[in-house]
Amino acid sequence: MDHLSQVIARINAAEAEIRTRYFEFLRIPSVSAQPQHAGDCRLAGEWLVSELKAIGFTAELRETKGHPAVVAHHPGPGTGTVPLLYYGHYDVQPAEPFDLWTSPPFEPTMKEGRNGPVTVARGAVDDKGQVMTWLAAMRAWHEVAGGPPTAIRVLVEGEEEIGSPSLDAFLQEHAAELRQARAVIVSDTNMWDPKTPAISARLRGMAYAQIDIFAASRDLHSGLYGGMALNPINLLAKILAELTDADGRIQLPGFYDGVPEIGGNLDAAWDSLGFDEKRFLGDIGLSVPAGERGLKPLVRQWARPTCDVNGIWGGYAGPGAKTVIAAEAHAKVSFRLVGDQDPNAVLDSLEEFVRSRLPADARAEIQRFSTAAPVVVPEDSPEVAAAQRALAAEYGRPAVLIGSGGSIPVVESFRRILGLDSVLVGFGLDDDQVHSPNEKFDWASLMHGARSHARLLAELAG
Amino acid sequence: MDHLSQVIARINAAEAEIRTRYFEFLRIPSVSAQPQHAGDCRLAGEWLVSELKAIGFTAELRETKGHPAVVAHHPGPGTGTVPLLYYGHYDVQPAEPFDLWTSPPFEPTMKEGRNGPVTVARGAVDDKGQVMTWLAAMRAWHEVAGGPPTAIRVLVEGEEEIGSPSLDAFLQEHAAELRQARAVIVSDTNMWDPKTPAISARLRGMAYAQIDIFAASRDLHSGLYGGMALNPINLLAKILAELTDADGRIQLPGFYDGVPEIGGNLDAAWDSLGFDEKRFLGDIGLSVPAGERGLKPLVRQWARPTCDVNGIWGGYAGPGAKTVIAAEAHAKVSFRLVGDQDPNAVLDSLEEFVRSRLPADARAEIQRFSTAAPVVVPEDSPEVAAAQRALAAEYGRPAVLIGSGGSIPVVESFRRILGLDSVLVGFGLDDDQVHSPNEKFDWASLMHGARSHARLLAELAG
Repeated sequence: MDHLSQVIARINAAEAEIRTRYFEFLRIPSVSAQPQHAGDCRLAGEWLVSELKAIGFTAELRETKGHPAVVAHHPGPGTGTVPLLYYGHYDVQPAEPFDLWTSPPFEPTMKEGRNGPVTVARGAVDDKGQVMTWLAAMRAWHEVAGGPPTAIRVLVEGEEEIGSPSLDAFLQEHAAELRQARAVIVSDTNMWDPKTPAISARLRGMAYAQIDIFAASRDLHSGLYGGMALNPINLLAKILAELTDADGRIQLPGFYDGVPEIGGNLDAAWDSLGFDEKRFLGDIGLSVPAGERGLKPLVRQWARPTCDVNGIWGGYAGPGAKTVIAAEAHAKVSFRLVGDQDPNAVLDSLEEFVRSRLPADARAEIQRFSTAAPVVVPEDSPEVAAAQRALAAEYGRPAVLIGSGGSIPVVESFRRILGLDSVLVGFGLDDDQVHSPNEKFDWASLMHGARSHARLLAELAG
Repeated sequence: MDHLSQVIARINAAEAEIRTRYFEFLRIPSVSAQPQHAGDCRLAGEWLVSELKAIGFTAELRETKGHPAVVAHHPGPGTGTVPLLYYGHYDVQPAEPFDLWTSPPFEPTMKEGRNGPVTVARGAVDDKGQVMTWLAAMRAWHEVAGGPPTAIRVLVEGEEEIGSPSLDAFLQEHAAELRQARAVIVSDTNMWDPKTPAISARLRGMAYAQIDIFAASRDLHSGLYGGMALNPINLLAKILAELTDADGRIQLPGFYDGVPEIGGNLDAAWDSLGFDEKRFLGDIGLSVPAGERGLKPLVRQWARPTCDVNGIWGGYAGPGAKTVIAAEAHAKVSFRLVGDQDPNAVLDSLEEFVRSRLPADARAEIQRFSTAAPVVVPEDSPEVAAAQRALAAEYGRPAVLIGSGGSIPVVESFRRILGLDSVLVGFGLDDDQVHSPNEKFDWASLMHGARSHARLLAELAG
């Protein structure tokens, strides 16, 4: 039996061990956005360092201005091969609202899902479960062959869910060490469907900001002051309403600069995927696509920009009636971006858009939380070809080249700072409830993912 | 020395005792809107029953469908006089946001204010402090003359701050007992300024509702679903924005039906009050009146309807960025009403306004929290004349007849159900921060109020 066959057999035999380690990782509430979880973020990083050391890596936690990053090295078979760089993130989204979870978000629980058993937990797929796929593959290679068949670098950050604020500086600081790689392997994307593997060839960018509107110096009685005092919630609603027109077109001046039209081969290729819009929307209780009118669904998801209010608050939100005019109002707003849209220019435009709509007595602050440029990765590299062979062998059908509506800002950073292209091979599904209550990861996806990564390592053997 | 002079002297001598009782009352966190304070509401009612019994009333707590009401009787000098009915409310607004209070809201604290000492606490003026003014007057009459110089009924409810949902039924049930009165005396309004007493001749009405918008069956990742999934916060913002036009005119169909123009004598009388708009707005950190354009400030406050969003929430409101499309969004919206506007018709129109703007996949619920018709009280009754004499004697200057932007729904109920007009004589000031953090009541206002009520009782002696 060749090494790969033994590695695959070893992964299949290790199912219970993989679950034990995966659950340990999921139990650490490494929510990067919430200061009270800073210690848990470090703990998740330390857990990874220990895992990597156990399978022959030199590994350590490295400080950033925020949560620490994990960096690890494995020489592979020692033949001077150019390493692969594996990237992932150990941080997770906030679990709120807790009351909508059917089991505690940091107590991973096996349940029966639509396609078989699933693990329910925050981070089940994004990104702890996906990181687990390649960790399990590397462990099996270690156990069977004493190590992976190629040199490997690992970089796992702890700030992806807050927009990777420290990562660019970190990559610059460690560029000499990290840029010596053939490509970056990233598992943080989805399959096409439970049976069809996919390689993501394009990711939308993002620009995320918080708008804070301030008016009176204190909360006011709406009877005594109503009709006299500026209401910042009414004002915020007007500003947010004007961000899009009745056809869903975003109204920031210059917003559509750099948004390409999709046509020709790409349009035909996407059509051939036979996307089931009705089922996609039906799964989330909807029936009609929102946003811009008259677009094909995959163009809408992968190749058009968006504007979503991600959160809003102000005034009284308790039970019953409180007749108050609030002193302030707040909203979190994000834009998904495509083509050559510049996230910083979008936020500049947002800032001007808000300020130009402020009446006397209103004041606004715009907090910028994260920006990421859109990315299109090359579809014809040797690494993409290797991934296509590995996935086809594992699933018995070809992998499709898809887009993703989400953003993985680091992919753009890898290209800009390290000069490296990424191979985005991920095992999530659209119904995984990523960022929502009851996030899950199909157990079959995790095991397929582990075997796929084992095969990819064989394909890319130094 | 006649009785009145002795009563006034007694009030002045009892300052410390008045404060002790007042502080006891303020320490009870009788927040009617919050279920966890239901027991405290009952406690506040029981405290009043005990106070009233101590000064010769027969008094008891009477159940309603919500918080209980206090009803008390005093026969007065026993000469078969027609009683006066005193109305107040023991419930208070929620104290949130707690972190903006400079002292705990239910720990009354004396501080130095702009016009001398003030008491800071939730309910300091609205309405516990105002109730205290007539309780102190009645106690002094009890101590000096064995009781008030006229028969008295007292009705203090515990649901005014949530729109008095049980009061109409309560008045109907006890109509035979309560309608035997000359007039209702209500202290829940403001003075013109710290030196000028006022009788309020008109109150705005109110209609208050909560709009709940529902879209997808769960929270969604804004990358995977952005551009496909309906965002209920974006939708809510658009609906709220359309409630008013750029000139501040409210856009509900039929909304302005029944709104009278203000002209002639009334316009001249209000002009003569010399309202200082600049100071009124400057006190709350503003400089320009909001809402409808081109109106005189007192017309704007007393005689025009409004639309204010009192609260809004949805999606993620924690620190940092969470890329979520929420499943639901919520707002509390209220309208102040004037003239012959019908609060139920306004809420019907709101409901239709919202429903007609819902795209496919969105669902709305409209919860109606309270309605109150606008009120204009007669300015030429013997009781108003008596109040003018009492206030002029206490303050050394005539009382002015003013409007109020706020609503006291019970005034309309008294007229409709009991056939009784009200005399609205209150001692609040515009800067009392009613319904806001750091609510206060000037100590001088409380003492003036107590003496004014003592004088009013003498004026209305059976």
